Amino acid sequence: MSVDLKNVWYVAAMSGEVAEKPFSRTICGTPVALYRSASGALAAVHDRCPHRFVPLSMGSVKGEALVCGYHGLAFAADGACVENPQGAVTKSLTIRSFTVQERYGLIWIWMGDADLAALTPIPDFSLIDDAALRPQWGYIHSKAHFELMTDNILDLSHIEFLHAGTLGTEKIRDAKTASVVEGRTVFSHRTVDDEILTPFLDRSFETGGRPVTRTLSVRWDPPGLMLLTVAVNPAGPEQALRETYNMHFMTPETATTAHYFWVGTRRYGPDDPERDRLFRAGLENAFLTEDKPMIEAQQRSLGSAELLDLGPALFKGDAAAIQARRILDEMRRAEAAASRPAS
Amino acid sequence: MSVDLKNVWYVAAMSGEVAEKPFSRTICGTPVALYRSASGALAAVHDRCPHRFVPLSMGSVKGEALVCGYHGLAFAADGACVENPQGAVTKSLTIRSFTVQERYGLIWIWMGDADLAALTPIPDFSLIDDAALRPQWGYIHSKAHFELMTDNILDLSHIEFLHAGTLGTEKIRDAKTASVVEGRTVFSHRTVDDEILTPFLDRSFETGGRPVTRTLSVRWDPPGLMLLTVAVNPAGPEQALRETYNMHFMTPETATTAHYFWVGTRRYGPDDPERDRLFRAGLENAFLTEDKPMIEAQQRSLGSAELLDLGPALFKGDAAAIQARRILDEMRRAEAAASRPAS
Amino acid sequence: MSVDLKNVWYVAAMSGEVAEKPFSRTICGTPVALYRSASGALAAVHDRCPHRFVPLSMGSVKGEALVCGYHGLAFAADGACVENPQGAVTKSLTIRSFTVQERYGLIWIWMGDADLAALTPIPDFSLIDDAALRPQWGYIHSKAHFELMTDNILDLSHIEFLHAGTLGTEKIRDAKTASVVEGRTVFSHRTVDDEILTPFLDRSFETGGRPVTRTLSVRWDPPGLMLLTVAVNPAGPEQALRETYNMHFMTPETATTAHYFWVGTRRYGPDDPERDRLFRAGLENAFLTEDKPMIEAQQRSLGSAELLDLGPALFKGDAAAIQARRILDEMRRAEAAASRPAS
Repeated sequence: MSVDLKNVWYVAAMSGEVAEKPFSRTICGTPVALYRSASGALAAVHDRCPHRFVPLSMGSVKGEALVCGYHGLAFAADGACVENPQGAVTKSLTIRSFTVQERYGLIWIWMGDADLAALTPIPDFSLIDDAALRPQWGYIHSKAHFELMTDNILDLSHIEFLHAGTLGTEKIRDAKTASVVEGRTVFSHRTVDDEILTPFLDRSFETGGRPVTRTLSVRWDPPGLMLLTVAVNPAGPEQALRETYNMHFMTPETATTAHYFWVGTRRYGPDDPERDRLFRAGLENAFLTEDKPMIEAQQRSLGSAELLDLGPALFKGDAAAIQARRILDEMRRAEAAASRPAS
Repeated sequence: MSVDLKNVWYVAAMSGEVAEKPFSRTICGTPVALYRSASGALAAVHDRCPHRFVPLSMGSVKGEALVCGYHGLAFAADGACVENPQGAVTKSLTIRSFTVQERYGLIWIWMGDADLAALTPIPDFSLIDDAALRPQWGYIHSKAHFELMTDNILDLSHIEFLHAGTLGTEKIRDAKTASVVEGRTVFSHRTVDDEILTPFLDRSFETGGRPVTRTLSVRWDPPGLMLLTVAVNPAGPEQALRETYNMHFMTPETATTAHYFWVGTRRYGPDDPERDRLFRAGLENAFLTEDKPMIEAQQRSLGSAELLDLGPALFKGDAAAIQARRILDEMRRAEAAASRPAS
Repeated sequence: MSVDLKNVWYVAAMSGEVAEKPFSRTICGTPVALYRSASGALAAVHDRCPHRFVPLSMGSVKGEALVCGYHGLAFAADGACVENPQGAVTKSLTIRSFTVQERYGLIWIWMGDADLAALTPIPDFSLIDDAALRPQWGYIHSKAHFELMTDNILDLSHIEFLHAGTLGTEKIRDAKTASVVEGRTVFSHRTVDDEILTPFLDRSFETGGRPVTRTLSVRWDPPGLMLLTVAVNPAGPEQALRETYNMHFMTPETATTAHYFWVGTRRYGPDDPERDRLFRAGLENAFLTEDKPMIEAQQRSLGSAELLDLGPALFKGDAAAIQARRILDEMRRAEAAASRPAS
């Protein structure tokens, strides 16, 4: 069973999650064994031995091969069987392998046609590579469809309510908003004028209780790759612009669960680990104790139904999320059409 | 999805469970948000925002309105949207609301047609309102269809076995029994002569080890509203009649789970909180450690099948429960017929 | 619902598990109440009262009868109702009973036609009865189809990998193997020459680090009754043959779960309880921490599919397991055919 699009880049893991000990993560309904071989090469194969269908991730890496822990069949990174203590090494023992690349501290996986992977660039998240921005990382497992999670970021009007007192204020509803589609990229902008930030944000952005102009800009690329830039511009000439960059990566695990990777960075403020810790804790607290319960409750409410099939009320703030969903649906139709045999 | 009858009074909660902080309880398969507004008005609405389908109970009450915790839509007690920070306030945003009333320390809900609610009285449980009877309260969640629970009360022959040594004795099998139907009310009577009560009951009823005549009378009204009167009459002229009144209210949560509210009162004995505590503990212990495990095991044994569809053996003691089930089935048929469009 | 074959001997319990207090175990999808009556007679009946379908195992044994804990119906070992406080004792109250016998410290059950039970001997496991062999016992519940567990024992090539360092060495892959079918019995042999045992086995078999010849011989009878004889023959004239006998009994609980009973014995070594304890702990450790997680992961990977329907790669080492599966499938077909009405 394959859940959702195959010919897109998904984030499979944070770099640090994958070492020589095989690591299993289900992506789009398919269990994947991720590992690094003795030479350090990154590999991803179907986490299922063709002999007895046990997870290969329960085995171990020997040299360049992944060895099944049950009867010792060994596989190369391309899925070919390279050793079989139980019989002949044959082509029929080849398992699926997946194109992976490591970039921006993340392991990216392409669940579909490897040739297409080479033609498709990963969107630019090089901000993560700038150590001066002091990136903070997190992973959250979520019992919700990944699109409910991208909806959340693409409609930040929710921060006034769901994150009242921490990330949002009552000024949010008066924001000037716009959403723009360029190719398969959706941009969602929000400008909030004359806002006194919450105590948490005031400390974070060092605005000293002064009114600010805050802009929140989201760039979304399929399937769920997002860069949220928050710029705070306090009143008064002596103040410089402060920016944070929050990267959100949502990957479907099953039809109703998802992996959520996030990276938070900032381009201002002192070189201070305690400050980093507080910044990270503030974000994680919002994601874990406010967004996650709400979105998981939404999923339980939807059950196995698709949100749009239930006829939800739609408002202006939903525009970006709807545009993103349209792009995904179009890509799903194209992928389904391409996989049908010509008649 | 609606589980079971809609046009009946169900107990939704004990009064003390519902305050300004919204409270969610699933009734007949439908999640309901119960709350009290700033003016103290009680309200019950479908616990699902029409925008993103999150539970409104995750939001908060502001003045007279229930405000969604995700994007701030606000609803009045009648389900009308009264504020929408994300767009226009329109009729299409109206959510379902339910008729509720507070009576006998309980919150009663009508899941169907409000006009019919006005025509249907709640059965009399005014015994609860008599503080002199020292009411003791309990709520138990049960993984069983509510009819398995009403069966239990309507056939008290089980107390000889399931509550041997606490509520029942071997004399129970010799009881004179009768069941009577009046309209939609079922009465089930049981008279046990010359019974030496168990130590627990002997202490409770202050019978000093003397033989007694015990009558157990159940009044059942649809769907699962029961008054059990236990009268104990000891031998000897100096003894007065002692009565306890146990109210049992079963409400379907889903097709295989139920809410069970109970109130125990007594018309004799001293004004003694410790005595109340023991009386309450004795009842709760029987309900929780004897009835609940048995009835939940019965539900597991039935799976998704209906009891009567499996052809159970039926005895004289089952008469009242069968009569109650017939009344419910007739009401279900009538409700289903009424909801079909005329052809 | 009946899961799997009915006309075979299954192990239902270890003798010590069943006493006067009724014991419930689900066999082939059917809940069974096992108990010993006051006279010590062993009995097994359908664990479901015909009145309200509650488990009879929640009741108690009174004399020779099993009494329902809900309304007091009592049943004899043959399933006949012998007392009914609620009404007449009739034939229609008879419940299913199952043929049981106690042998080799185990309770064996026949879920099908009692006449056929009498014609079918239980395979010989009299080694268990030889107290000099110091039998060690274990029971493991497994979330896997019982055939995945019999596959495991019938293809011991896995010990090189799954039990590396404890039960297997790299010599295992060089073993001479053979499998033979005699009637409905499958034999699987494996001879490993010139093997230096692992430290655990070296201590167990007292081989003092010397090379040995190890033979592993499995006898399988339907449905999942196995005797594994391990013989270790060290080099050098002064050494005598050491043998262990491990009995494995797998019983289907549901279509994807099983009961696993095992007995380990040895024909050598001192009369030493500490040695017994270490021998037992070593086996249980392998079964619980190595076999069980692997086989349960295999079941999760298969989901509700049958292994062979998914087209697994098959090697020489799978021969015995495939032969056993063929015998079972043939028996299933015969049983299904016999249960169809003649046309």
